[in-house]
Amino acid sequence: MKDCHILLIKCADRQGLIANITGVLFRHSINVVVMKEFVEPETNTYFSRLELLGPLDVELIKTELLNTLPADTKLMIHPRRKKDIVVLVTKEHHCLGDLLVRHHFDELHANIKAVIGNYDVLKNFTERFDIPFHHIDHELYDKEEFEARVIDAIQQYHPDYIVLAKFMRILSGNFVAKFEEKIINIHHSFLPAFIGANPYRKAYERGVKLIGATAHIVNNDLDEGPIITQKTIPVDHEHDVKGMREAGHEIEKSVLADALKLVFDDRIFVMNNKTIIFN
Amino acid sequence: MKDCHILLIKCADRQGLIANITGVLFRHSINVVVMKEFVEPETNTYFSRLELLGPLDVELIKTELLNTLPADTKLMIHPRRKKDIVVLVTKEHHCLGDLLVRHHFDELHANIKAVIGNYDVLKNFTERFDIPFHHIDHELYDKEEFEARVIDAIQQYHPDYIVLAKFMRILSGNFVAKFEEKIINIHHSFLPAFIGANPYRKAYERGVKLIGATAHIVNNDLDEGPIITQKTIPVDHEHDVKGMREAGHEIEKSVLADALKLVFDDRIFVMNNKTIIFN
Amino acid sequence: MKDCHILLIKCADRQGLIANITGVLFRHSINVVVMKEFVEPETNTYFSRLELLGPLDVELIKTELLNTLPADTKLMIHPRRKKDIVVLVTKEHHCLGDLLVRHHFDELHANIKAVIGNYDVLKNFTERFDIPFHHIDHELYDKEEFEARVIDAIQQYHPDYIVLAKFMRILSGNFVAKFEEKIINIHHSFLPAFIGANPYRKAYERGVKLIGATAHIVNNDLDEGPIITQKTIPVDHEHDVKGMREAGHEIEKSVLADALKLVFDDRIFVMNNKTIIFN
Amino acid sequence: MKDCHILLIKCADRQGLIANITGVLFRHSINVVVMKEFVEPETNTYFSRLELLGPLDVELIKTELLNTLPADTKLMIHPRRKKDIVVLVTKEHHCLGDLLVRHHFDELHANIKAVIGNYDVLKNFTERFDIPFHHIDHELYDKEEFEARVIDAIQQYHPDYIVLAKFMRILSGNFVAKFEEKIINIHHSFLPAFIGANPYRKAYERGVKLIGATAHIVNNDLDEGPIITQKTIPVDHEHDVKGMREAGHEIEKSVLADALKLVFDDRIFVMNNKTIIFN
Repeated sequence: MKDCHILLIKCADRQGLIANITGVLFRHSINVVVMKEFVEPETNTYFSRLELLGPLDVELIKTELLNTLPADTKLMIHPRRKKDIVVLVTKEHHCLGDLLVRHHFDELHANIKAVIGNYDVLKNFTERFDIPFHHIDHELYDKEEFEARVIDAIQQYHPDYIVLAKFMRILSGNFVAKFEEKIINIHHSFLPAFIGANPYRKAYERGVKLIGATAHIVNNDLDEGPIITQKTIPVDHEHDVKGMREAGHEIEKSVLADALKLVFDDRIFVMNNKTIIFN
Repeated sequence: MKDCHILLIKCADRQGLIANITGVLFRHSINVVVMKEFVEPETNTYFSRLELLGPLDVELIKTELLNTLPADTKLMIHPRRKKDIVVLVTKEHHCLGDLLVRHHFDELHANIKAVIGNYDVLKNFTERFDIPFHHIDHELYDKEEFEARVIDAIQQYHPDYIVLAKFMRILSGNFVAKFEEKIINIHHSFLPAFIGANPYRKAYERGVKLIGATAHIVNNDLDEGPIITQKTIPVDHEHDVKGMREAGHEIEKSVLADALKLVFDDRIFVMNNKTIIFN
Repeated sequence: MKDCHILLIKCADRQGLIANITGVLFRHSINVVVMKEFVEPETNTYFSRLELLGPLDVELIKTELLNTLPADTKLMIHPRRKKDIVVLVTKEHHCLGDLLVRHHFDELHANIKAVIGNYDVLKNFTERFDIPFHHIDHELYDKEEFEARVIDAIQQYHPDYIVLAKFMRILSGNFVAKFEEKIINIHHSFLPAFIGANPYRKAYERGVKLIGATAHIVNNDLDEGPIITQKTIPVDHEHDVKGMREAGHEIEKSVLADALKLVFDDRIFVMNNKTIIFN
Repeated sequence: MKDCHILLIKCADRQGLIANITGVLFRHSINVVVMKEFVEPETNTYFSRLELLGPLDVELIKTELLNTLPADTKLMIHPRRKKDIVVLVTKEHHCLGDLLVRHHFDELHANIKAVIGNYDVLKNFTERFDIPFHHIDHELYDKEEFEARVIDAIQQYHPDYIVLAKFMRILSGNFVAKFEEKIINIHHSFLPAFIGANPYRKAYERGVKLIGATAHIVNNDLDEGPIITQKTIPVDHEHDVKGMREAGHEIEKSVLADALKLVFDDRIFVMNNKTIIFN
């Protein structure tokens, strides 16, 4: 959508906020195409996301809004645009394949600038789509050096987001801090069940009748970040671990794709390790 | 929620509508707890539903809003309150049972004033919940007389809504016109598939792998009214017609309950035979 | 289905088992209506469930089958029949209400002999369906005495199964041992996520996007027994704890009903804390 | 699974069938790994699918089984193997992309021998996966000639199955007859709702709250063939036709992939325009 801006607002709730916000926009003849809001009741915090149509002076609108809104207001306004991303992988192809096909046909709402793998098994596949692939072997370096090289590879592309498409290395707090709220991971379980390694093995041993997948924003605690999307599908006693894994792959790629659509269109707020999603 | 009013607005869309609406409310110090909006793109029609907190002068607010909004505006404002309903049934108990239990524990957001049946098989069951049951036998009268008697029975309760909880008689246009957009039906298929009688038999013969249920507002055309909620569940070749019917009952009651929750809380607009739902 | 017997077999797998089993039945002119099997690959254990039609001499068939099958064989054969059950509740009505309505219309495939509550809030409701209600107040006795009284109340009905329909007291190992694999519980989370008390509060705090319910067989470890059925439904940031609880009630009763249908029709084997289900 | 054979049997049901079948296999020391059966009650027809392990003389087993089974028996026995397929497309890439990625990583249980398109827009994409693409322009020929050329292109590959991955030309009865029960189609609606062209437009106009996809075997009647798999997903008033189409693409590819997994592993019987599926 051309000439469209996204406006995100977070502030303490009080009477008249909507009138304040829309009053400023009205005076500047800005058309509000979509407006979604939420007041978080425990902290009394107001969140809203607006899509604005027509030419507008971003700095002016920002200033006027900040003048009329509470002192603590966090506000972001920018043109709606495709995001630049870098994808990290290990050996599994299903999420990467899904992203590359969507990207190839311009359906991802993002530009995949590069793929980085700690193995090279997905190099040939990635390059078939004319996307550069960086192989950084985690066995050649200690963890710090490995991460430094990954960070270097990432930063040359200045991505808006980093997507962990089944990247099976645990990232250090240092790494995560460099890209705060900018790393999206797909975990192959219905979190918080089966945190950590081998969730399908654990699911099999527990005898669950559903398996799940969870896309979340990465923070310092393994598999503990704010959840964006989750899905489950039925399994039964005929599913061994391999059968669960295969069934799970189907929802992993779908859950990740759904989450990225929300992330890339600026539809997510994070608060207290939870997400508020305007879809 | 005490002291809560619901405000529903439908009008032609134009720039500044939200500022106009919230400006009026702000001037009267009315707190907007929730505000949901939608602009229907084909007709450029604006819809919104607001929950307002605090005491307010309904007539004054209404007048001021109408003064500031487009000439064609349809506006409704009233206190949030439980609705009065009459339930029509034939022989099947699953939807009625679900409604009576919810009502008994005050979870229906409605008062069931009476149940009317064209058979009496559900009379004893209904009365166990201290709800009056009217048996009006459709075999004793011609259709016109039958409907007149049902209308009489209904009207003594002045219900806000009439719920067809598996009422298996087709209502005349005359009947429907008396209660425009006030009759809610549950149909035992995924409409528009399998309109009319015996949908499970038809579903069985077609060999579908999902069966569905649809709650809709009743209009003059059989099973053609605006759809509120729908669900499907898997079936397979081991389901005969009876098995499909039993499986279907589970979603029929759930689909009807979900729809009624939306209807009774004034969350539905109808436009061009479709529903706009703010949930 | 009259004159129908259920045959359940568990034994070490080996070549020719099916030929052995069906050979015996064929020689006695017994019609196998349905036969379902599974070989558990880690332990190489064979499970099967057969529905047999026509009159048969249970002891004779049992003897001949045991003669032809491996020495470790566990075998059960009995007429298909409705089960007798006792239901335990605390204060919440949604699961009990669902069970009582199904029972009233003879859809539960079980006879509810009595309801036992540690509060009396569901007494009047239960009695509307002509089912005896025993109030055993857990505050009047210590845990041992309380459980002894509950066991006494249960045992006068000689139930096949005990259904915990939101019974919020933790049962001792002693209690559970008395009714091995005969107690069915509904837990209000997607186990193993949110074991123990207040799962909706925990789900809310974790910010999950799905909530779940799990029906399982009770063993000594809290919420760790073999899982029968599970479901999840979507939630979002607009669901507070109360909203999650209300949404969850809808699947709790449905998950429990699905599980009981399987249990009451002898469709479940337990092995290594997991269920094998022939549905 | 090496040394695995699939045995499919269809015949009139009678007492002792399972004993007859497993008796033959037992005498030849053939291990039955999995055995699934179904008796269709309206026609009293017996269906079963067995997975047999170990070396076996196909012709001998076939002869002995036919000798012991009813005269009308249809029986198929062959080694479990990957199928050869040809994929037909028009312009949409989502189903093709999904199939090509699965095929590339050897997850499709089939060899894609070629892709045929009535447009050439997917040629470059297909060839990136080293799969030949035949462009046969339907505008250059009349329907008969067009189909003759497509048939020629298909037949040079001797495929087991033809997959219509959003192929938007209606096939003649003549074409379908050449590949009886060998053509699999994905239709972008929940059949039988919205048969024919533009189902998303029709779904939008009807105001449905779920949209669906259906994979089916193609017969002479448009969108009327035996259904293999179906799925639905929720939509609401914010979905315009384009939004429904995008949402629908997600389930179209998943429904087609699920169906093909069943087809390629010989898990489907067709009877009276319905499928019996042993999964």
